[in-house]
Amino acid sequence: MIESIEASPLYPIANPKSIVLFGASNNVTSMGTSLLDSVLDLGFKGEIYPVHPKEDRVQNLKAYRSVLDLPNVPELALIVLPTRIVSEAMDACGRKGIKHAIVISGGFKEVGGEGVHLEKELVTVANKYGMHFLGPNCIGVANPRHKLNTTFLPFQGNPGFIGMASQSGSFVTQMFSYLSDYGLGFSTAFSVGNEANIDIVDGMEYLGACPDTRVIALYIEGIRRGRAFVETARSIVPKKPIVALYVGGSKAGSRAGLSHTGALAGPDRLYEGIFRQSGIIRAQSVMEMFDICWMLGSVPRTRGRRVVIQTHSGGPGAEAADACGRAGLDLPSLSPETLQRLSPFIPRTASISNPVDFTYGKNLMDYFSKIPKVLLDEKNADILLFYFFAPYQRFQRMMRQMGVPPNQMAAQAAKLVDAYSESIIGLFKNHDKPFVGYTFQNLMDPLVKILIERGVPIFSGPQRAARAIGASFQYTRLRDKILATVSQEAGLGSS
Amino acid sequence: MIESIEASPLYPIANPKSIVLFGASNNVTSMGTSLLDSVLDLGFKGEIYPVHPKEDRVQNLKAYRSVLDLPNVPELALIVLPTRIVSEAMDACGRKGIKHAIVISGGFKEVGGEGVHLEKELVTVANKYGMHFLGPNCIGVANPRHKLNTTFLPFQGNPGFIGMASQSGSFVTQMFSYLSDYGLGFSTAFSVGNEANIDIVDGMEYLGACPDTRVIALYIEGIRRGRAFVETARSIVPKKPIVALYVGGSKAGSRAGLSHTGALAGPDRLYEGIFRQSGIIRAQSVMEMFDICWMLGSVPRTRGRRVVIQTHSGGPGAEAADACGRAGLDLPSLSPETLQRLSPFIPRTASISNPVDFTYGKNLMDYFSKIPKVLLDEKNADILLFYFFAPYQRFQRMMRQMGVPPNQMAAQAAKLVDAYSESIIGLFKNHDKPFVGYTFQNLMDPLVKILIERGVPIFSGPQRAARAIGASFQYTRLRDKILATVSQEAGLGSS
Repeated sequence: MIESIEASPLYPIANPKSIVLFGASNNVTSMGTSLLDSVLDLGFKGEIYPVHPKEDRVQNLKAYRSVLDLPNVPELALIVLPTRIVSEAMDACGRKGIKHAIVISGGFKEVGGEGVHLEKELVTVANKYGMHFLGPNCIGVANPRHKLNTTFLPFQGNPGFIGMASQSGSFVTQMFSYLSDYGLGFSTAFSVGNEANIDIVDGMEYLGACPDTRVIALYIEGIRRGRAFVETARSIVPKKPIVALYVGGSKAGSRAGLSHTGALAGPDRLYEGIFRQSGIIRAQSVMEMFDICWMLGSVPRTRGRRVVIQTHSGGPGAEAADACGRAGLDLPSLSPETLQRLSPFIPRTASISNPVDFTYGKNLMDYFSKIPKVLLDEKNADILLFYFFAPYQRFQRMMRQMGVPPNQMAAQAAKLVDAYSESIIGLFKNHDKPFVGYTFQNLMDPLVKILIERGVPIFSGPQRAARAIGASFQYTRLRDKILATVSQEAGLGSS
Repeated sequence: MIESIEASPLYPIANPKSIVLFGASNNVTSMGTSLLDSVLDLGFKGEIYPVHPKEDRVQNLKAYRSVLDLPNVPELALIVLPTRIVSEAMDACGRKGIKHAIVISGGFKEVGGEGVHLEKELVTVANKYGMHFLGPNCIGVANPRHKLNTTFLPFQGNPGFIGMASQSGSFVTQMFSYLSDYGLGFSTAFSVGNEANIDIVDGMEYLGACPDTRVIALYIEGIRRGRAFVETARSIVPKKPIVALYVGGSKAGSRAGLSHTGALAGPDRLYEGIFRQSGIIRAQSVMEMFDICWMLGSVPRTRGRRVVIQTHSGGPGAEAADACGRAGLDLPSLSPETLQRLSPFIPRTASISNPVDFTYGKNLMDYFSKIPKVLLDEKNADILLFYFFAPYQRFQRMMRQMGVPPNQMAAQAAKLVDAYSESIIGLFKNHDKPFVGYTFQNLMDPLVKILIERGVPIFSGPQRAARAIGASFQYTRLRDKILATVSQEAGLGSS
């Protein structure tokens, strides 16, 4: 466990003041040039020094023949060169006094044969100068608050609260727009590649200390330092949750991982055990991993597994009940107090069990305000799961029916959406009980979009919601267990 | 098994030439008025006669005091009246000679007590006149080709190939926009409600005979006529697949269903057996049900379970391999012929096992044209699973790098998207091997959107793709099994 985030070898890598870049050129189709584009696009504030054997200027920046010619010692070297000359560049960086690097280039251990040898050589060079580096065969770092994106795709979206350490670069860079659709974003994300020097444990440690990271996501194809992994995770989990995806457990997934980053996968059960011991929540897919992060980073800690479902539609209510059941959640009966408080809102045809089905009534405002307020107060429940279906088309029709002139319809419908969303956001922010939604609508639907942008998790379909709720309760239990062990050990120590 | 679609009691209900409507008024907030709005919005071509006790005109249509006053005998009665007066309206329809109705009103068996009695009375009235009716407690029919939408929400999207019979109205009407996002739509969808007269088996039978229906979706909370259900399904499955969602198997789902439509659910295993015997594919969620429909209605029959995965990104490839493994699919090795044909496209750092990972190379056109062509020819594989990640931002950057002036960038990027999509669509349409995609991008992303609109299934995440592929192969086996039984029976009969 590091004392502070600055103590991590990843700190200068994620927060460099200056960068030297090998591999960018005036050839616009090269990877190195794309990478420089990404750094420039996001508006990196520090110095950038391209090194190029021939050019005087690279993409309008002054270029240097050699890193040794630079006026200063940059904090970070970014290397996107052909495999065979990477070590040479690294050696030059070492001689210059640079202590940190990201090696983007592939063709090392993951291809076997000579690649294995080249990777050993690279490690030897780094060790000679006491250098730390990420990679090789990675796509580096995205730290959007620091305006740093070393991946070769443009950054999209905003900084967020998810810290990620990934053995796949794609699950960093190809997730920018995915996360942005959900109102989410990375605090900092690392692609660790072949982990020749810095590994996923270092990434986890950095993110554990990172004040902008509320929840940590790990994509794992194989763990190299088992014991350090478990110990680091256990030291972090009491403070923030960790969610992991491991695909190496199946034969097919394992083979794919080996040729991808050279990681040696283990049997599914072994990893299941490691995660349990570490207090880590295991996700079954990348999307589920981010769903769980969304839930854990957005709502208060889930104290129990008792869910109350609010719906106006029977089928979506029944499917949610089924999904909760399958996710190991309970649907408690409502207390007499709640039933009494709900009675003014319950039409004769409505169901007052749980799911609470109000049917598609006339007063949507109650559905979005008074009713969830009562259900959040329900003492028999730990969480409210809320069905969202409020299509713009319906609001427009309501406007037309109310005689709103066509030219004012959009504005009036927008007002309605605002009123509903303000009410939901008010309840969401001012209640210490978790409150999440599910919908079948596109996340671009106006009401859903506003709520997501304001931080309310609304899952696509009840299964994703139920599994995220289940995982959030799992975190409560994992955390309690680790804290109990810690206090027991402390107790034994003092006796 | 019906001889022709016209022989179904649902035919006049889904294809009426004229409609009498009870419950619409000039009160714009009433359910009946919303329903009339829906019918008018979609542009229903036949006569519409509102019946209203006081008004002369309803929503600009001539209104009648009584159904008995109508100049003609309408083919279909739509009833959206308070529960207590539904039977009376039904009786008047019977006297008028109307033979078909949809009873939208709720408050019958699903609420218990007097509702049970009122439903019996309604059935007695219908029987007296030999009438067939859908409901009560349903939202009717959507048959967009006939411009008929009797649900109280506006229709969105286009007619499609999914026929649906549902014990939840929401899973008809609230799915309009959902399906439309996936380029899908209903051929005809029935909400069967309490099934007092017409039930889900009748719906399935109609859809089996419907020429616009390529695949049938069923949402089930409880089956009332078990034997008829199995026999009808078995007669349809050789011609078209049936996919069902049953949520009554869990305790929570079962309770919710009971209060929703009064359906008595049975243990999960019993239903599992019914579906297997019927040759029906079981889905685990509404979204999965439509995924499977998408797959089965869009691609040639899947002959085996051997999948080849094309990717340019290791992590998404490994996750897809893992998902295929978990869905019971195989990832065969590539044949020497394929490896040889692929060699010009394979960079040194690329993986030539399966998933075939081409890495993020420079020539995207190969990725979208020559490479999938080779993989579709692979004799060791039955299906190609293709990873899509082609963000517009990247195309724009490519344009900028190539020196395309800013004002031509959008047009040039659009051209690129067109070239890629045309190539993929050509392969998709002209190959008799199934070809599906997966992506983490929003379905609104230009390339993904075009492909989806043109009928190429691209699933959100590899798990959904793998499960849909698994289900499509399951259909092949279920169909073969039924056909084998049929031919065995025929053989025995003739011997």
